[in-house]
Amino acid sequence: MNELTVVGSGLAGTLLSLVLAQAGHGVRLFERRADMRKVPQGAGRSINLALSARGLFALEEVGLKEAVMQAAIPMHGRMVHDLSGKLSFQPYGQSGEYINSISRAALNQTLIQAAEDTGKIQIVFNQRCTGYDFAKHQVQFVDDENQFNYAFQASGPVFGADGAGSPLRRALVERVRVNYAQDYLEYGYKELTIPPGPDGGFQMEPNALHIWPRSTFMLIALPNPDGSFTCTLFYPFDGPQGFEQLQTPEAVQTFFESQFPDALPLLSDLQTEFFQNPTGALATIHLSPWYSGSELLLLGDAAHAIVPFFGQGMNCAFEDCTVLSQVMNEMGHSAHPQWEPIFQTYHQRRKPDADAIADLALENFIEMRDAVADPGFVLRKQVSLLLEKRFGRQFIPKYSLVSFHRVPYSLAKIHGEFQQQLLEQLCEGLNEAENLNWDLASTLIEHYSQTAPNLGTFLEQEVNAP
Amino acid sequence: MNELTVVGSGLAGTLLSLVLAQAGHGVRLFERRADMRKVPQGAGRSINLALSARGLFALEEVGLKEAVMQAAIPMHGRMVHDLSGKLSFQPYGQSGEYINSISRAALNQTLIQAAEDTGKIQIVFNQRCTGYDFAKHQVQFVDDENQFNYAFQASGPVFGADGAGSPLRRALVERVRVNYAQDYLEYGYKELTIPPGPDGGFQMEPNALHIWPRSTFMLIALPNPDGSFTCTLFYPFDGPQGFEQLQTPEAVQTFFESQFPDALPLLSDLQTEFFQNPTGALATIHLSPWYSGSELLLLGDAAHAIVPFFGQGMNCAFEDCTVLSQVMNEMGHSAHPQWEPIFQTYHQRRKPDADAIADLALENFIEMRDAVADPGFVLRKQVSLLLEKRFGRQFIPKYSLVSFHRVPYSLAKIHGEFQQQLLEQLCEGLNEAENLNWDLASTLIEHYSQTAPNLGTFLEQEVNAP
Repeated sequence: MNELTVVGSGLAGTLLSLVLAQAGHGVRLFERRADMRKVPQGAGRSINLALSARGLFALEEVGLKEAVMQAAIPMHGRMVHDLSGKLSFQPYGQSGEYINSISRAALNQTLIQAAEDTGKIQIVFNQRCTGYDFAKHQVQFVDDENQFNYAFQASGPVFGADGAGSPLRRALVERVRVNYAQDYLEYGYKELTIPPGPDGGFQMEPNALHIWPRSTFMLIALPNPDGSFTCTLFYPFDGPQGFEQLQTPEAVQTFFESQFPDALPLLSDLQTEFFQNPTGALATIHLSPWYSGSELLLLGDAAHAIVPFFGQGMNCAFEDCTVLSQVMNEMGHSAHPQWEPIFQTYHQRRKPDADAIADLALENFIEMRDAVADPGFVLRKQVSLLLEKRFGRQFIPKYSLVSFHRVPYSLAKIHGEFQQQLLEQLCEGLNEAENLNWDLASTLIEHYSQTAPNLGTFLEQEVNAP
Repeated sequence: MNELTVVGSGLAGTLLSLVLAQAGHGVRLFERRADMRKVPQGAGRSINLALSARGLFALEEVGLKEAVMQAAIPMHGRMVHDLSGKLSFQPYGQSGEYINSISRAALNQTLIQAAEDTGKIQIVFNQRCTGYDFAKHQVQFVDDENQFNYAFQASGPVFGADGAGSPLRRALVERVRVNYAQDYLEYGYKELTIPPGPDGGFQMEPNALHIWPRSTFMLIALPNPDGSFTCTLFYPFDGPQGFEQLQTPEAVQTFFESQFPDALPLLSDLQTEFFQNPTGALATIHLSPWYSGSELLLLGDAAHAIVPFFGQGMNCAFEDCTVLSQVMNEMGHSAHPQWEPIFQTYHQRRKPDADAIADLALENFIEMRDAVADPGFVLRKQVSLLLEKRFGRQFIPKYSLVSFHRVPYSLAKIHGEFQQQLLEQLCEGLNEAENLNWDLASTLIEHYSQTAPNLGTFLEQEVNAP
């Protein structure tokens, strides 16, 4: 039964295993860490995530949407904190459109439990993958519990969902004609906590993603079910305004006092957390192809890690599983599928979208840390939502195409470029969104509809989806 | 004495060892292969090279220019073969300017012998580097002769000149915040031979680099001292015109008959060579930074492998040694140099130039396989040489800046862009180079001199060089 091998029981690997099991395959799922349902995992690294349409669709396909959404906190927009502590709320979409703050650990545990409950997925914990031998089709592991090395002889294909630092990718990258790039951001990140208030409740508005945009850097905060917020400071590593200058409690105190005065009183454990939590690095990974023959396929961060600023890392990894499942269905069900054409088709279809969301995520960093504080940007965002309200599917803002719809990321990106032009024209000389020139808007929307790629088929599919 | 470790006794590593020894250091030089002075090396991969100004300067610095040039064959320009076998000669530069076809093996042997002769460089052959342990500052080796693994405890810095597939780079790339990219060309290459004629002499003009430009692919040939030519076919891997179609002797025969009819009779061992020699792949490597602390520095292909179309791979690697030596001198001689600031300064100075020659090499592929057959290109090339003849240092063509001068590659690239504009303006409507509008030329050259970055200092340095 255990013909398929999946490496990594993180979010992508476990959902993939569920999808493969649903297609009738037995799966052996290897995980580096201990069983997270029994052993608590270290904090300090992205403990919450923003779940949106693509991730929700994939979860629904394996029957887990409802269970996951029970612990989700809707975030309807951005709550922008200026230097004086003044708040302004910028909705993400129309009323009823929101993204969801969820706990990575809780979601992963739900997935692992569901995987085990299928009876088709055998999870082996404490098995650290260290490499792959193409000639022998063996995955190399260290059993960290019992302290020995071994090579696992795979029969069917090996699926690598072993994350941004993927050991399986390292093996693939050594092959000839495999293109690869890793690009680090000049920014590091540090996780901090705003605990619940004395009454156990939230100390800020819970149904928003909080941003303190400071042009070249930012602090953000996402709500957790226990009344706390997980905050993340994104700040350059080097230079006069960089982590290298924040070496003493005094420097940290002064920095937060001057930049985030309203957050400082809420960050009650700031000094301890700042010096105990690691300063994380962020990279974008490009790889091509993602597979080798019928033997190995990488998915999720292992294939295309992105920066977190569009909240799409997990959603994209989940959508990888959706697309792979679609391709498998299109090629016909079988107990012994032709994996190489499946991997080839999957790669061909999915790669442009993974490239697009990588770019969009980088662009969104500038939007979050800088643009949200710019009145021109705020006006264009307001106008774009008004246009959608009036023109419906003829104008769905880029953010919404990415977060509330499932049209291919590559098309969302192209539409974003058309929209940017349209909005700049429409907002020139405009002081308030309400004073919009609707005649001009109609003309521009007409032109946009005729020139931008058609999204109709994709939007239809969403409506007809289960 | 053996405080410095160099990995790789190829061209870059051995010259580097000589430079380090010249600066007073003892060097232990590890080499994967057997001693090439005793054991002949496998053919089929770039057995000749084009040595030009930068490489010659570096060789002169270690006193080897004369010895190396004794076996060199000057190539004064390109000999272009059209489909009918008609030849046209395109000089590279002014009379007396040429590049040199040399044998990789002979040059490497000369360098190795010179290294040993210093008495300061201990070369250890048959030691295959497999990795590097940053925590322990140990280089991992397999001794292929005696078949055992060991870790070499380095005391001073480790210099990695271990080539395009560098195992040391693999270790560096695993570090956080190291940016890396490997981009394969969609083209493969195959080496073939035109042997000497029955009389032992050359069967084609020896003092030229022969090109059969076929727009999307090409064949080239470089002369060897024994009267033979080493030919290289650059051809797509995939597609209807690609290596994947050349699977049978008949297909190869038909292909050469239709595309290289004048070369075919000279390629007397075509069928054997075509199916015995490997189809090589070509990649561009970008890495940043090239060093880690004071422990590790990569040079040459290990740091920045490029495609071969500008004939600058070796010249660039040799110039790496020149620049490193300059930086070491600027920072003051010492038995125990401060390596980290040296590596940092070297990287900062050299990186933009390595990036520039990588781009120029890719651009030159299009020039070689396509543009040399275009009358417009030929006219602009002729005009550019006329301009240099008249205006001297005010206009040195891009090719010459790269091949006959030693101005930084990054400036050569920028000047190339200015020159392209100037030449397009000057050649518009021009039918023959002799009919050049010299008044317009003067005006444009004046403008170019005032707007392009000044090369004066660099050109002065060349004149004053030893």
